[in-house]
Amino acid sequence: MRITPREELDYRISRLQTYMAGAGLDAVIIVQNADLFYFTGTIQSGNLYVPVEGDPIYMVRKEHSRARMESGLKLVVPFSSMKNIPGILADHGYSLPARIGMELDVVPVAFFERYRAVFPNADFSDATPLIRRVRMIKSKYEIHLLQDAAVQVDKVHRRAMEVIREGMTDLELAAELEFTARKEGHQGLVRMRSFNSELFYAHIFSGTDTAVPAYVDTPLGGLGLNPSFGQGAGLKRIERNEPIIVDFAGCVDGYLVDQTRVLAIGGISDRLRRAYDDMIRVQERMITLALPGTPWGDVYEGCRTLAEELGYADSFMGSRGAQVSFIGHGIGIEIDEYPFIARGFSEMVLEPGMVFAFEPKVVFPGEGAIGIENTFYISNYEGLKQLTFSDQELVIL
Amino acid sequence: MRITPREELDYRISRLQTYMAGAGLDAVIIVQNADLFYFTGTIQSGNLYVPVEGDPIYMVRKEHSRARMESGLKLVVPFSSMKNIPGILADHGYSLPARIGMELDVVPVAFFERYRAVFPNADFSDATPLIRRVRMIKSKYEIHLLQDAAVQVDKVHRRAMEVIREGMTDLELAAELEFTARKEGHQGLVRMRSFNSELFYAHIFSGTDTAVPAYVDTPLGGLGLNPSFGQGAGLKRIERNEPIIVDFAGCVDGYLVDQTRVLAIGGISDRLRRAYDDMIRVQERMITLALPGTPWGDVYEGCRTLAEELGYADSFMGSRGAQVSFIGHGIGIEIDEYPFIARGFSEMVLEPGMVFAFEPKVVFPGEGAIGIENTFYISNYEGLKQLTFSDQELVIL
Repeated sequence: MRITPREELDYRISRLQTYMAGAGLDAVIIVQNADLFYFTGTIQSGNLYVPVEGDPIYMVRKEHSRARMESGLKLVVPFSSMKNIPGILADHGYSLPARIGMELDVVPVAFFERYRAVFPNADFSDATPLIRRVRMIKSKYEIHLLQDAAVQVDKVHRRAMEVIREGMTDLELAAELEFTARKEGHQGLVRMRSFNSELFYAHIFSGTDTAVPAYVDTPLGGLGLNPSFGQGAGLKRIERNEPIIVDFAGCVDGYLVDQTRVLAIGGISDRLRRAYDDMIRVQERMITLALPGTPWGDVYEGCRTLAEELGYADSFMGSRGAQVSFIGHGIGIEIDEYPFIARGFSEMVLEPGMVFAFEPKVVFPGEGAIGIENTFYISNYEGLKQLTFSDQELVIL
Repeated sequence: MRITPREELDYRISRLQTYMAGAGLDAVIIVQNADLFYFTGTIQSGNLYVPVEGDPIYMVRKEHSRARMESGLKLVVPFSSMKNIPGILADHGYSLPARIGMELDVVPVAFFERYRAVFPNADFSDATPLIRRVRMIKSKYEIHLLQDAAVQVDKVHRRAMEVIREGMTDLELAAELEFTARKEGHQGLVRMRSFNSELFYAHIFSGTDTAVPAYVDTPLGGLGLNPSFGQGAGLKRIERNEPIIVDFAGCVDGYLVDQTRVLAIGGISDRLRRAYDDMIRVQERMITLALPGTPWGDVYEGCRTLAEELGYADSFMGSRGAQVSFIGHGIGIEIDEYPFIARGFSEMVLEPGMVFAFEPKVVFPGEGAIGIENTFYISNYEGLKQLTFSDQELVIL
């Protein structure tokens, strides 16, 4: 268990304050768990009041003693009622803010209304784009956590090579690999910010089930165990000569990496083998494109164009009709952070410190899906570095 | 995998429409996964438009083919843009609604604004209280699913008796029991409706770690593995003569039950043993109180009063300062459904068909926590029935 160093928190807050000044905000009030963890070091319930200048105040409803222990922030105060907020601000010499940012992409309407009632004369706007911009640049401390998560997901990959047997169900394989990650310190939870986007550890499936589309905003979906959570592993039995996809989110101390590898017993069809090699080529193309200063959308277009030239216009990033409009996604505390390697995004550019998962995949309905995924980091001095490191060869068992 | 029968869906919709008529709503638009699953049988992304009279329309963005397969609703239509909604309504002979209900306790502000832009002249209000009232009365079909989940959680309990060893960590025990549930068909995900309330399978911890309070709205918390998700199992090693708490949410086909049992190697202190027996007495008191027609809050007050008389004023439902104001919670697709056996709630009464978990627990800081939890069902003809059935004796290994 690591406690986020105070210098980390201070730097993160100062960067947010810079963006706030640029946007003309007097304060940002942070309430969502992923953002709370990033800016306070913990998620004890309450809110973090960040003024455009001065120290932030972490107001904690439950559990104040733990917040004091787990957060490196200077001002951690107990808090029991919304109507006490103006008093707490006054106690610390802050006047009432006129322009307030909140995380309007995740805060529910009814919850927001309670904050609006506390500040009836304030203008509210969405602070999430600013928060995302701070969070998208990872520190050395964060990269170390991601490297640990990459070690964890490599152990999962090695375990997959050991346990896959003809006739086992996708669920049995998933259970084995989740068990492996959990014993290695995976917290279980995999956070995705987008509304309704529930995830579990992994998407693990085989053969035709790899090609089943789902509601989730991912290139592959899977049937799942039931329609209440229709993604990931189902009860299909693993057979010879079909792809087995292990798309796994490793997690250490709250930080995620994403890796996909493909295994098979016996072999796979020539079409799938060629597609696998071609997806490696798309990854190589990305590596040549993903330079600091390049718009996110340009990386997407360059890679998608190559995939089309290679013959995958109707199968790249999903089966026809279910194709997603991204190939990569920023990753850290959540699995859908900035940058998005996606259609559009012509104005946001890659910068040193960014971390993203890149997952070129193709889907042939009724046959199967294949592809690869790695998590990358744009280093200050060494260019693009690959954090996930499991062998990229298709594993034939 | 079960597909929700069409008659179930039709009945659920008709009950919602009755409440809508009473509340003067022309339409309810349902978007959140748990509610979508309840009213459509699946969670393929999109929205369910429920008019106060007539058939609901399930508009599906992704994946329409799966929604057709998994939902028993008659009208399942493809949907690509919010601005097409009025046209879809017109195609089905529905006029624009003037009063619309949405799930304002869970729908984020920015998401809601997109719906508001589609219906600029409509009045919006919170439909969640109506939805909760429909969902709180379980059908025979749902009770069968809950009974299956009770079988799963009993297997978890039996496995705990097999695997607990002195010196293993709480995490190792949690990993073993999660593995057991997963192989039995647990979907992994445990849904909680309340904002920011992330859960994993279980709260499993031992000794002094059972008494660590956390941010979650639960009587026990736990340290967890790290401050990013500071609840549940940590790295403490299990010792002799201390309580080991296994609070586990079983899940079958989307339906949850909640059960807590306590185990120990060797034995536990007289104080904890007496407290365990007293919590059984609180459960027995609840059984005498939980009759149809009784206000939820009266059950809470009756049980809390008994706990205070037994000497637990400062330790019941949490350590002093971290006590929660409930003893039980409705459960089904989410772990925080109606009814709440909680402070207040003097006007809502128990009714046949309701299902709730009841969890009298005490916490002695620095020593440990103890208690019991079962999931109960108010049957039409047979009164209160206990769904979870693992032996209630404290397990001494």
